[in-house]
Amino acid sequence: MSRVITPRKEDYSRWYTDVITQSQMADYSPVKGCMVIRPLGYSVWEAMQRELDARFKETGHQNAYFPLFIPESFLHKEAEHVAGFAPECAVVTHGGGKELEEALIVGPTSETIIYAMYAKWIRSYRDLPVLINQWANVVRWEMRTRLFLRTTEFLWQEGHTAHATEAEAEEEALLILEIYRRFAEEQMAIPVYTGIKTDSEKFAGALRTYSIEALMQDGKALQAGTSHNLGQNFARAFEVQYQTRAGTWEHVWSTSWGVSTRLIGALVMAHGDDNGVSFPPRLAPFQIVIVPIWKSDEERVRISEAARLAAEELKGVPLRLEIGPRDLEKNQFTAVRRLDRRKIPVPRDGLAARAATLLEEIQNDMLEKGRAFLRANTRDVKDYDELKRGLDETGGFFRAHWCGAADCEKQIKDDTKATIRCIPLEGNLQDGRCVRCGSASKQWVYFARSY
Amino acid sequence: MSRVITPRKEDYSRWYTDVITQSQMADYSPVKGCMVIRPLGYSVWEAMQRELDARFKETGHQNAYFPLFIPESFLHKEAEHVAGFAPECAVVTHGGGKELEEALIVGPTSETIIYAMYAKWIRSYRDLPVLINQWANVVRWEMRTRLFLRTTEFLWQEGHTAHATEAEAEEEALLILEIYRRFAEEQMAIPVYTGIKTDSEKFAGALRTYSIEALMQDGKALQAGTSHNLGQNFARAFEVQYQTRAGTWEHVWSTSWGVSTRLIGALVMAHGDDNGVSFPPRLAPFQIVIVPIWKSDEERVRISEAARLAAEELKGVPLRLEIGPRDLEKNQFTAVRRLDRRKIPVPRDGLAARAATLLEEIQNDMLEKGRAFLRANTRDVKDYDELKRGLDETGGFFRAHWCGAADCEKQIKDDTKATIRCIPLEGNLQDGRCVRCGSASKQWVYFARSY
Repeated sequence: MSRVITPRKEDYSRWYTDVITQSQMADYSPVKGCMVIRPLGYSVWEAMQRELDARFKETGHQNAYFPLFIPESFLHKEAEHVAGFAPECAVVTHGGGKELEEALIVGPTSETIIYAMYAKWIRSYRDLPVLINQWANVVRWEMRTRLFLRTTEFLWQEGHTAHATEAEAEEEALLILEIYRRFAEEQMAIPVYTGIKTDSEKFAGALRTYSIEALMQDGKALQAGTSHNLGQNFARAFEVQYQTRAGTWEHVWSTSWGVSTRLIGALVMAHGDDNGVSFPPRLAPFQIVIVPIWKSDEERVRISEAARLAAEELKGVPLRLEIGPRDLEKNQFTAVRRLDRRKIPVPRDGLAARAATLLEEIQNDMLEKGRAFLRANTRDVKDYDELKRGLDETGGFFRAHWCGAADCEKQIKDDTKATIRCIPLEGNLQDGRCVRCGSASKQWVYFARSY
Repeated sequence: MSRVITPRKEDYSRWYTDVITQSQMADYSPVKGCMVIRPLGYSVWEAMQRELDARFKETGHQNAYFPLFIPESFLHKEAEHVAGFAPECAVVTHGGGKELEEALIVGPTSETIIYAMYAKWIRSYRDLPVLINQWANVVRWEMRTRLFLRTTEFLWQEGHTAHATEAEAEEEALLILEIYRRFAEEQMAIPVYTGIKTDSEKFAGALRTYSIEALMQDGKALQAGTSHNLGQNFARAFEVQYQTRAGTWEHVWSTSWGVSTRLIGALVMAHGDDNGVSFPPRLAPFQIVIVPIWKSDEERVRISEAARLAAEELKGVPLRLEIGPRDLEKNQFTAVRRLDRRKIPVPRDGLAARAATLLEEIQNDMLEKGRAFLRANTRDVKDYDELKRGLDETGGFFRAHWCGAADCEKQIKDDTKATIRCIPLEGNLQDGRCVRCGSASKQWVYFARSY
């Protein structure tokens, strides 16, 4: 506890790493690019899993488990997919002491192995929809890694659904997008923008990618979850066909979607401060800590108490209940909110109910704070200089018109390091001029630099 | 549903595979030796996880997550460990398009990577005990695989604990053994023998291995869970030391323990019959199915009902509630137990409570049936011919004296394909003569052929 957390203003990136390692949420491992998720960090993941899993099951999804390994040839069956993922693959060439006839890829995502199975399982319209999710580890070889946000191995859930019609697949992709949006707001207390990705930013092999986009305290966006309408791309590549009611054969329409342990990084970045992590009550490993402050042997107690408080701050406990001599006299506790250090006297009678209410208030206040932050850091920009200056000076999201041309998008990225985070699904249709080239534009989009 | 399950007497091995694939619990994957766990099978695993996870947490353990990959050199740090596991490893030689400087092993078990971290985290007696578990996938290259029982990749939990004293580590290993024993009996309705493994059968790198051993319907034993006292072996290999209260430095004492998706195979083999799987209520994905049997359009209904019943049998639902015209008249349901097809009329008033009681009775009856089977198939044998004949004719467990010599143990294995499944922890001390060599023996042990 003697180590100090680097203040955010001094070095945001070091602050982030300090907070995570000193709270013992995670640690670097001896395996390049791979992290160890320690019990405090893992219990946040468990809380996320519990809630998301319940929401998936409520909407008819079931869990399953598909192999970690993928035959190399499978990856090549969908042309865009292999182009996107091949450079990130870890390759198993030897097993059981022998060189393998065909190398195995350690799955960067499981579409290919899953569609190979769906081709076997799906025969008739009666078999549809197939609504499967899995909780698993995946590997994407990364050069520059960062705890939780970008690691060579990470944990995630990946949903893979197959449908009879294009409309059903689209509905599923949007249903999941909404589950992710609500989870981010209701559980993580992080408001997000939702929308569709441009072609250059979409998932390799998808028809359309939807995402939720959050804003971190340093003004950078973070893609926190994606939901893909895969069209019939994988169905064609793996020959997943079903017989319709009418007796004809058609390829299924499919989706895939996922969130990962990256969400834990988002939670730290969105809510932490110079004292450490600060968890929203609904995902906090410990919601309340009770701290007795005794009268006797005061000096000794003050020191150990300070140490304990420092440790608690590091663990991000949202509500502290102090009980000192004055509280005892008044038959009360003093509640202290981690969020803003506000102190609130709480009578001992009815403590449990009052504490539950306080936790709900904290959860709401954290979300409101996040909303105010997102509002304050989302700006309309009309010309290119304004966009560039905004990105350099304040960061945040920028609503700007875009002509829709891929080369214009690329030029903006090259010039500013900002990308189109998403195109809103509604409310953005408006005549204007592209922020870069000045051509006619029918819509504005969200630009930001991102993690 | 038109496919037929091979009867157990005809071919037990095919029966097992038929039951699993036709119930859609699991399927073969295109990756050699790797299986797909389908939703029905996975929901059994989820039920097992829920219960075991609660028991681990009640006893002070926390979950964490360690990397899948292990640097090859780590495996070599503990001599017995590498000898045991090197032949089973899958090896990653390329990542991100380049050949790696040091190959990575896809973890067959995580002791080495975990002790490398413990060496970093543990400094003082105040840091002990460390009680960590993880739910993960592991890979052990297998030549001959069988759904759930032996697959190249499988899911498991692995606990890894570090303690200040030898006695504490031993206590932990035995605490977990007892958790496993009770889980097998109380949840899986499978009675087991517990005991210690001989040196030739213990975990590579352990001081002592304890196991629970169950008996399958074909008379073969199945090792269903293991708990290892690792002594200071891994602590020495990875230099995991702590400073004692007195200020001296000592190596920690440690344990590891695990159960895997193999337990699902045990469940199928222990309770299934020629109609399919039969789940004990506490782990059943569906506990009750309600089947209306209508009067009208009788022929059509009878057919679709038969199909539905066949499908239910395949899903192993422990209790069926039928409601037909006569039941309606009497204001009752007819309950049918999957276990033995026994029919029990149940009044509609108080149905929920009665159904819960019936499920508890089924759970108990399944355990009692298992106990009777285990008792009936555990025999005392005094001479070698009797042991050989017993193994060939009936299978099961054989209580026999053993002199304690490794070469005698090996000769028995070579002659009979049976191994010492475990040495009981109590009740087996008795003067006798080794079943093979006739030398003096102080104890009897359990012999069986096994999966």
